[in-house]
Amino acid sequence: MQGTFQQKSETDLLQSFKEVRAYTEKLCEPLETEDYVPQPSVDVSPAKWNIAHTTWFFEEMILKKHVGNYKVFDENFAFLFNSYYNSVGTRTLRHKRGDLSRPTVKRVFEYRRFIDEKMCDLLSQDLPEEIRELVILGLNHEQQHQELFITDLKYTLSVNPLFPVYRENYAVEEICELPSKDFVKIDEGIYEIGFAGEGFYFDNERGRHKVFLHDFEIRNSLTTNAEFIEFVEDGGYRNHFLWHSEGWDWVNQNEISAPLYWYKKDGEWMNFTLSGLRKINLDAPVCHVSLYEASAFAEWKGLRLPTEFEWEIASEKFGWGLRWEWTNSAYLPYPNFTKPAGAVGEYNGKFMMNQMVLRGASVATPENHSRKTYRNFFHPHLRWQFNGIRLAK
Amino acid sequence: MQGTFQQKSETDLLQSFKEVRAYTEKLCEPLETEDYVPQPSVDVSPAKWNIAHTTWFFEEMILKKHVGNYKVFDENFAFLFNSYYNSVGTRTLRHKRGDLSRPTVKRVFEYRRFIDEKMCDLLSQDLPEEIRELVILGLNHEQQHQELFITDLKYTLSVNPLFPVYRENYAVEEICELPSKDFVKIDEGIYEIGFAGEGFYFDNERGRHKVFLHDFEIRNSLTTNAEFIEFVEDGGYRNHFLWHSEGWDWVNQNEISAPLYWYKKDGEWMNFTLSGLRKINLDAPVCHVSLYEASAFAEWKGLRLPTEFEWEIASEKFGWGLRWEWTNSAYLPYPNFTKPAGAVGEYNGKFMMNQMVLRGASVATPENHSRKTYRNFFHPHLRWQFNGIRLAK
Amino acid sequence: MQGTFQQKSETDLLQSFKEVRAYTEKLCEPLETEDYVPQPSVDVSPAKWNIAHTTWFFEEMILKKHVGNYKVFDENFAFLFNSYYNSVGTRTLRHKRGDLSRPTVKRVFEYRRFIDEKMCDLLSQDLPEEIRELVILGLNHEQQHQELFITDLKYTLSVNPLFPVYRENYAVEEICELPSKDFVKIDEGIYEIGFAGEGFYFDNERGRHKVFLHDFEIRNSLTTNAEFIEFVEDGGYRNHFLWHSEGWDWVNQNEISAPLYWYKKDGEWMNFTLSGLRKINLDAPVCHVSLYEASAFAEWKGLRLPTEFEWEIASEKFGWGLRWEWTNSAYLPYPNFTKPAGAVGEYNGKFMMNQMVLRGASVATPENHSRKTYRNFFHPHLRWQFNGIRLAK
Amino acid sequence: MQGTFQQKSETDLLQSFKEVRAYTEKLCEPLETEDYVPQPSVDVSPAKWNIAHTTWFFEEMILKKHVGNYKVFDENFAFLFNSYYNSVGTRTLRHKRGDLSRPTVKRVFEYRRFIDEKMCDLLSQDLPEEIRELVILGLNHEQQHQELFITDLKYTLSVNPLFPVYRENYAVEEICELPSKDFVKIDEGIYEIGFAGEGFYFDNERGRHKVFLHDFEIRNSLTTNAEFIEFVEDGGYRNHFLWHSEGWDWVNQNEISAPLYWYKKDGEWMNFTLSGLRKINLDAPVCHVSLYEASAFAEWKGLRLPTEFEWEIASEKFGWGLRWEWTNSAYLPYPNFTKPAGAVGEYNGKFMMNQMVLRGASVATPENHSRKTYRNFFHPHLRWQFNGIRLAK
Repeated sequence: MQGTFQQKSETDLLQSFKEVRAYTEKLCEPLETEDYVPQPSVDVSPAKWNIAHTTWFFEEMILKKHVGNYKVFDENFAFLFNSYYNSVGTRTLRHKRGDLSRPTVKRVFEYRRFIDEKMCDLLSQDLPEEIRELVILGLNHEQQHQELFITDLKYTLSVNPLFPVYRENYAVEEICELPSKDFVKIDEGIYEIGFAGEGFYFDNERGRHKVFLHDFEIRNSLTTNAEFIEFVEDGGYRNHFLWHSEGWDWVNQNEISAPLYWYKKDGEWMNFTLSGLRKINLDAPVCHVSLYEASAFAEWKGLRLPTEFEWEIASEKFGWGLRWEWTNSAYLPYPNFTKPAGAVGEYNGKFMMNQMVLRGASVATPENHSRKTYRNFFHPHLRWQFNGIRLAK
Repeated sequence: MQGTFQQKSETDLLQSFKEVRAYTEKLCEPLETEDYVPQPSVDVSPAKWNIAHTTWFFEEMILKKHVGNYKVFDENFAFLFNSYYNSVGTRTLRHKRGDLSRPTVKRVFEYRRFIDEKMCDLLSQDLPEEIRELVILGLNHEQQHQELFITDLKYTLSVNPLFPVYRENYAVEEICELPSKDFVKIDEGIYEIGFAGEGFYFDNERGRHKVFLHDFEIRNSLTTNAEFIEFVEDGGYRNHFLWHSEGWDWVNQNEISAPLYWYKKDGEWMNFTLSGLRKINLDAPVCHVSLYEASAFAEWKGLRLPTEFEWEIASEKFGWGLRWEWTNSAYLPYPNFTKPAGAVGEYNGKFMMNQMVLRGASVATPENHSRKTYRNFFHPHLRWQFNGIRLAK
Repeated sequence: MQGTFQQKSETDLLQSFKEVRAYTEKLCEPLETEDYVPQPSVDVSPAKWNIAHTTWFFEEMILKKHVGNYKVFDENFAFLFNSYYNSVGTRTLRHKRGDLSRPTVKRVFEYRRFIDEKMCDLLSQDLPEEIRELVILGLNHEQQHQELFITDLKYTLSVNPLFPVYRENYAVEEICELPSKDFVKIDEGIYEIGFAGEGFYFDNERGRHKVFLHDFEIRNSLTTNAEFIEFVEDGGYRNHFLWHSEGWDWVNQNEISAPLYWYKKDGEWMNFTLSGLRKINLDAPVCHVSLYEASAFAEWKGLRLPTEFEWEIASEKFGWGLRWEWTNSAYLPYPNFTKPAGAVGEYNGKFMMNQMVLRGASVATPENHSRKTYRNFFHPHLRWQFNGIRLAK
Repeated sequence: MQGTFQQKSETDLLQSFKEVRAYTEKLCEPLETEDYVPQPSVDVSPAKWNIAHTTWFFEEMILKKHVGNYKVFDENFAFLFNSYYNSVGTRTLRHKRGDLSRPTVKRVFEYRRFIDEKMCDLLSQDLPEEIRELVILGLNHEQQHQELFITDLKYTLSVNPLFPVYRENYAVEEICELPSKDFVKIDEGIYEIGFAGEGFYFDNERGRHKVFLHDFEIRNSLTTNAEFIEFVEDGGYRNHFLWHSEGWDWVNQNEISAPLYWYKKDGEWMNFTLSGLRKINLDAPVCHVSLYEASAFAEWKGLRLPTEFEWEIASEKFGWGLRWEWTNSAYLPYPNFTKPAGAVGEYNGKFMMNQMVLRGASVATPENHSRKTYRNFFHPHLRWQFNGIRLAK
């Protein structure tokens, strides 16, 4: 599952552009018009916003700046579909995205088509490296939003008492690994961390540097639903000794007693999936847990979570990609990290506070959008991504 | 504009049913599918909910109870489209209505058609008075939601930076009265208040009773935008002496400085209307003010608002119907008011606390849904209805 | 218990001043220094604030304006001990009063002594009527705060897990009436409402005017704890049919299941009193209920609360003064009510919104501070005053 | 300023106990009774609570467990003065500590005296190592609360418009270093981190281990008020490019425009100190900044904050102890960290989430309570501790 965009020729870049953009639209196929609109939580964007925002990125960062006499599709879209880029005009308040019925879905698809056409024109030309890099960044950005599209949609459908189905037989959530619980051993020493080699990477994984790791062991498979049910049924959610102080507050304030999307019905654990409400597959890796839950589970097992550095070094030795994996590393800059100037510089650096690193990739991650140095990050209480647990000691 | 449903024959009732239901659908014509979904404020329901809820009323209160072997259209709709009726099953949390993309708009219209068919079958029969009265109540209920449909939709469109147009030339908001500012005089004495005569009335206007009124005078026309601009420009919103204590807190906490939907653009007052953003018509009655604003305006004028009893007695002597008119009467039961048993009993009585009475009707009120004894009521800070000001002394 | 300040001679006014001021200090006797400081709820003022604020009133409204070359005791006190008088300088935020350790209690008593001396000097002179009226207003204001001193202190002590005792044998809470449940009958007709005669009155009871009352009956004694326990044990707090919509929300959001200060301990109802935690006296009038609870109780009994007009007219015919009595009348201006100009004008008028009238007086009301036309008012959810229930039909 | 408790003989331990306890009471000398009561922010404890809680620690953790037939001073104090120890009974809600007027300050000092006597008896005996270690932990705990006593008191006095003085000539806040701005250089390599040697340490600094550090430089003096004023006057608080995303939200939501306790008065920067409101000393190290402000300042300088590992290694080469110094390290466990079992295990481990490490010590830190391996930690937005800035590159 590892891989990345290579430094592609013009033709390849045009081809990549078309593929990535087409994949977004493929994800939209099962949706009703109404499904594009709601925003049931501040962290969850409407599907309409996700597909317009990724389009806006190409218009704002590339077409407006690098195409002579470029005329915007609609001057309102600059602020409607901006996200957190403070340096690019006023933005619509993040938690108000679900209040907007217009522009319609139809209009947003016209916008996509308009931008695709302009971008394809541009990509047919001989482009300076700077623009090519922005295009590659835009495609990686769109791939991130492809994953968010799926996770946001899952959340939106889940709050509906009708438990709507996205796709029948969307089985990805239930893919299992081999049920090994062996540990991989890594010897202490100095290791190199961060992106190396050819291809695309984000600025937060740049700056290859050395770290010293002590001896450690890490499990070669993920924690399963069966294991997590044991924790639940042993009273794990009611034993404050297992929890971080803020985790314990979170459990109590939100009355948390199971992973997100789990429901106990007639004594049996059910799970809301993109194929609707289903019996839990005991052998599948547990999913939709917060870092608080992952840590409490590890504590209960007498084990711990790996650091992101341990994970990166060990990742050659096990399969990964079914779940994002919480690490016990805070999302902080690597040595020598510096923010690029301007709006692109807002991509990663300003989020390096109060968030924790996840490594790996999930079933919702697009192909060609994962690598062992990739640093994903979320606040420790968030669960709507496909997050799982790998134990270390 | 005054009038009401008469005690109709079967044919008339069937005809009324068809007319009222058709009018709701006429109101929907200009909408895009997406416009049915958002709920930008807890007080504002999605259009989809308004049209489903009025349909649900007929299914829940009439078809389920009075049609043998009635099979519900969809068993989920009973809780999805219930409103505040605590006695009828679980309801969807009021502020979560905008999170539901499903059922789709198409499905909700199928629901309407299904219920319409069953109701028309029922109404073709010879019905006991009890059922006929429930049908009439259901139609009045739907008319109330026709007005809410318009006011809720206006609010939803207004929060959109695109200022979408509902209908071009939807001029109703700008209809003006004759610009008289004369006062009607009423002599002191005992007067009778409450509904009398034939036709439909709500339980809150029942119980005709006597009140003693002292001499008073009431203006025969509504306060205009021009008059209200004078108040604004005289610093009315910054002079705490004019305001109720809670009104003053409301002004400051919400940074209120003009009626809802007013915007100052390049030194000129603009107004968001269902035909989009427009220059304010100075001669039109001021609209979308809270009771706090109405009271402060009256204080500034050295006048006051009428009580609901003064309004009812004087209403024969002036034209009304362009705006709901705030009165300085709390919404409380008339002597001998009692709640009907069961769910219908929840219609009005339980709201008789912390709300203030409005009398009259507005440009958004359906024809045949107003009369001088009608008691509308809202919390004093609410502005999204078409509320105006009539002064008394 | 009825009575009022008469239009007194100079000597009498000086004597009244001394008596009222001394009574405040008598109330302070049992307090520890620390008891003067906390503010456990925004509605509850620290004891220190209550005794300083009443002193401030005399300095701000009388000494500063009417004594030549008056030099303030401490220039900071003008904003520290102002309450809601927006027209007199900046005030300390109401909910921050408990954050202030300084000025110390000792200093506040010095302030009292300083002001008392200046006031006694002033009151030894021949004063114009205007000043005499302000003094009388200040004394009535202090009496209102004497009641608040007790009710605020009770609340402050009640949140302390140690259940501190204010006075042993402070038995006033348990005084009982004769246990009659007879109803007084009043015939329909035109009655006069509002203050008449000699003596002090507040502006909100001014403007004697006529009202028409229909026949009604009102109980000659208050609802007892025994009766209210029946309501509790019959599930009154869980039956939504009995409640106003906002009352039902209040019950559920605050998990209300009994009057304020009631605790069930080993199957027995206990009550926090100013003499500590005690077994409930079944024959005492129920106390510390909101209007929501009073209304639900009346609904459960198949009766109703009286209006303030019914209460005023009937009050000649029964004993009252043990509890403030909720009426089902909103606190609104009488006909011809106008606000006095300036700061004194802020006394009552600006609170005439969203509050309900209580009539009578309570065991905490100072002697000489009650009369049948007195209009007390609170928001319907508030319970920390000594509020009880009288039923009507 | 570095130092620690040594493994003392019985006599020494008794002596240390007396000294530490006496120092707490010395800190109390300037207080009025009322100053012990308020809690103006959830993070700030009342002085009364701080001095009772440290006493409670000795009773709960030592006397109750290790003295035969020990009879508690007051059984209520176990829950009144517990802090976050979930494993020891119910605790008073943290944000409600300021609502309690009782027990009185006098009673809390009686409690101290009672416990001191029992502890001195115990310490006169030959004690097993386990108990001696708990005593040493208790003394270090009390020293932490001595610092909190000062910082909490400063906050409490600061919200009072009277700006009360704790001590005249409490000049510690204005002590300055030599104004050097040189950088210390450290070479890349493997270094050892964590406590080594004799004496007391907290569990979070245990587990000496290796880290690899790249070349870095760190300033040998702290950022001064003069430097920070430059940042303020250059618009640092209004330039979102300098801030973390959450820092920017924090600045805007709280309208932050200067360090805590700074006020601009007649064009001049003033500072609230424990000696009252004073002109800012330009050469003193800036204080009371959040990590967000420290980071934005570093960004503006084109520099960065050190990591806690860089700080620990470099700390031999510069003076420190005037301010806690923000590092850009999250508070996470060292390799092989494990929580002790039971209540003592709740001391540190459960806070290892969402907090950032500060190193050094401040002017409010008691003597003998600092060392280079000491890990202090707070949420990044908190400012009421004496926090400053040291830059690195």
